[in-house]
Amino acid sequence: MKVDGVPHRTIWLAEDGWSVEIVDQTLLPHRFATVRLTSMAEAAEAIRSMQVRGAPLIGATAAYGMALAMAEDPSDESLQRAYETLMATRPTAVNLRWALDELHGLLAPLGANARAATAYVRAAEICAEDVALCRAIGEHGLPLIEHIAARKDGAPVRVLTHCNAGWLATVDWGTATAPIYMAHDKGLPLEVWVDETRPRNQGASLTAWELHHHGVPHTLIADNVGGHLMQNGLVDLCIVGTDRTTRNGDVCNKIGTYLKALAAHDNGVPFYVALPGPTIDWTLASGAEIPIEQRDAREVTHMTGRTAAGEIATVEIANPGSRAANYGFDVTPARLVTGLITERGVCEASPNGLASLYPDKAGD
Amino acid sequence: MKVDGVPHRTIWLAEDGWSVEIVDQTLLPHRFATVRLTSMAEAAEAIRSMQVRGAPLIGATAAYGMALAMAEDPSDESLQRAYETLMATRPTAVNLRWALDELHGLLAPLGANARAATAYVRAAEICAEDVALCRAIGEHGLPLIEHIAARKDGAPVRVLTHCNAGWLATVDWGTATAPIYMAHDKGLPLEVWVDETRPRNQGASLTAWELHHHGVPHTLIADNVGGHLMQNGLVDLCIVGTDRTTRNGDVCNKIGTYLKALAAHDNGVPFYVALPGPTIDWTLASGAEIPIEQRDAREVTHMTGRTAAGEIATVEIANPGSRAANYGFDVTPARLVTGLITERGVCEASPNGLASLYPDKAGD
Repeated sequence: MKVDGVPHRTIWLAEDGWSVEIVDQTLLPHRFATVRLTSMAEAAEAIRSMQVRGAPLIGATAAYGMALAMAEDPSDESLQRAYETLMATRPTAVNLRWALDELHGLLAPLGANARAATAYVRAAEICAEDVALCRAIGEHGLPLIEHIAARKDGAPVRVLTHCNAGWLATVDWGTATAPIYMAHDKGLPLEVWVDETRPRNQGASLTAWELHHHGVPHTLIADNVGGHLMQNGLVDLCIVGTDRTTRNGDVCNKIGTYLKALAAHDNGVPFYVALPGPTIDWTLASGAEIPIEQRDAREVTHMTGRTAAGEIATVEIANPGSRAANYGFDVTPARLVTGLITERGVCEASPNGLASLYPDKAGD
Repeated sequence: MKVDGVPHRTIWLAEDGWSVEIVDQTLLPHRFATVRLTSMAEAAEAIRSMQVRGAPLIGATAAYGMALAMAEDPSDESLQRAYETLMATRPTAVNLRWALDELHGLLAPLGANARAATAYVRAAEICAEDVALCRAIGEHGLPLIEHIAARKDGAPVRVLTHCNAGWLATVDWGTATAPIYMAHDKGLPLEVWVDETRPRNQGASLTAWELHHHGVPHTLIADNVGGHLMQNGLVDLCIVGTDRTTRNGDVCNKIGTYLKALAAHDNGVPFYVALPGPTIDWTLASGAEIPIEQRDAREVTHMTGRTAAGEIATVEIANPGSRAANYGFDVTPARLVTGLITERGVCEASPNGLASLYPDKAGD
């Protein structure tokens, strides 16, 4: 997507043809800067420090990390070390494991001198595949927005989204944002309600940043506000992303998604989940089987931002001495989901809905 | 309630018998300090700067402000000036108007030399009446907690609350917190989930502070978390406050209350609203008639806290350049409210429920 008129991706091969550049997301929204990765160790550190985040982007970065390792030293030892080092950066990330297994499986049988070139080609393919996946989600989601726009007589279609399922979490387009960017680029009038998304504030810092710099009209709101907006007819459509969706259509996503789905359901607002096929966990029958990660309480009790003097500072915002709990995700039951927007089309959030689009995956 | 073992109120007559002391709530949760008010102007500034906040406490402070004015100068001009100055501090606060009308009506017919003493007596009565109101809410709410405790076999009763409807918002006890403090003081095991309550963080800063210093076990959570907790059986009961409740039982309260009520309803968790009688707006048929205040966007985009060096600092947390909206309240429809806990007893959130407790107010 664009940053102030210039098209960008979150990761790309540098002009030198071997090093890799990324957007340093730890500096957003206060500073836009790119970083050049020149070694596997730097790629691993970029993932670990969350300069890159979002499952698809982590996978892409890991793939390029393998390529950088092979450029440095294409030996078997180097291949194994890169695999292990990169895997240890974010051990629970599904795309990370997938990308590393993919590259390792491809490279291990090759002679050392063929490994680097093959790795770079496959890493570029993984990026291109992710872009194609997100673009297809956008194309399938676009008609939902167009349909609403057709009855709004030029008034903006108001879309609420939660957390960051934007291009910063992928290589380009994003998932939940793909239909939004596509509608905007086609000239449809939009107004996006951006949930702040406490405690990590990824809506306020990342989604707001990317919509702002691409030029999509949007308004930041506290997570408490969406219900009130829906009660008052100020939301036409919700679109969120998902970290994992089970075969019955239950949606695991950033904490708070369930509350917005309840409000949408209570007010007859369509609630869609944008969903790349690899996010479907066919091994799980329902969301009840998903373990919910608990994260550092400090994300709740402290907050980082920019002082009036322009410095980045962290302040304690909660009562000192109070315990805090930090659940990272929740599960929105399929009954509250109007539909799933996938790269293969839109379907009902149900076993039959998913099986109709993914007969090859659903089994029997 | 207690602060580290010592009983406190939010406002009291100083030992000198004429000046008034308050807890400076702008310093919480980082510092506990009291301020002595020695003039009507200082009382007005305390309300304006939100050193005191919460409808009942604002009313009590305004009453003492009138008393201080009469101690300074008991003339008609002084009386009128005090009335107008104090009224202008928070023009939409219902209790403020009520207290000022009460004092003005009482003092205006008196001779100048009788005014100060009468004002001090009435201000003290207003404080005592508020304490009695909140204590009665506690007494009526306590059996709800005891009832749950009886089937929990010693495990803590888990109560979720939103925003600050605590003793800091009143003279003592609070409204939503009154049953909690009473249960705790009786030795019932409790665990209170405290919603952070963005954007002003009054849960994280005020409710957490007061529970902590009274010794009530509690855990701070982001506003996004309550739904997940209720889905997983981790909440036994919700108790919130209200700024205004209409004659049909619709509850206007801090933004985000509606989302928690939806989650409680979806998971069969009892959802109670603690409600002093004066909060009922008998002139409104339903919550749809309540105008919702929009506040400064800066409350969403910036946050204040304490740096590691111990200084209070404000940081910008949102994407610079993004618009923000800040709706202060929402309306929870009566159908989602299990019951109203008032100083006269617990009733259904319905026209009949309220009329049964307040036949003198409900009219026909």
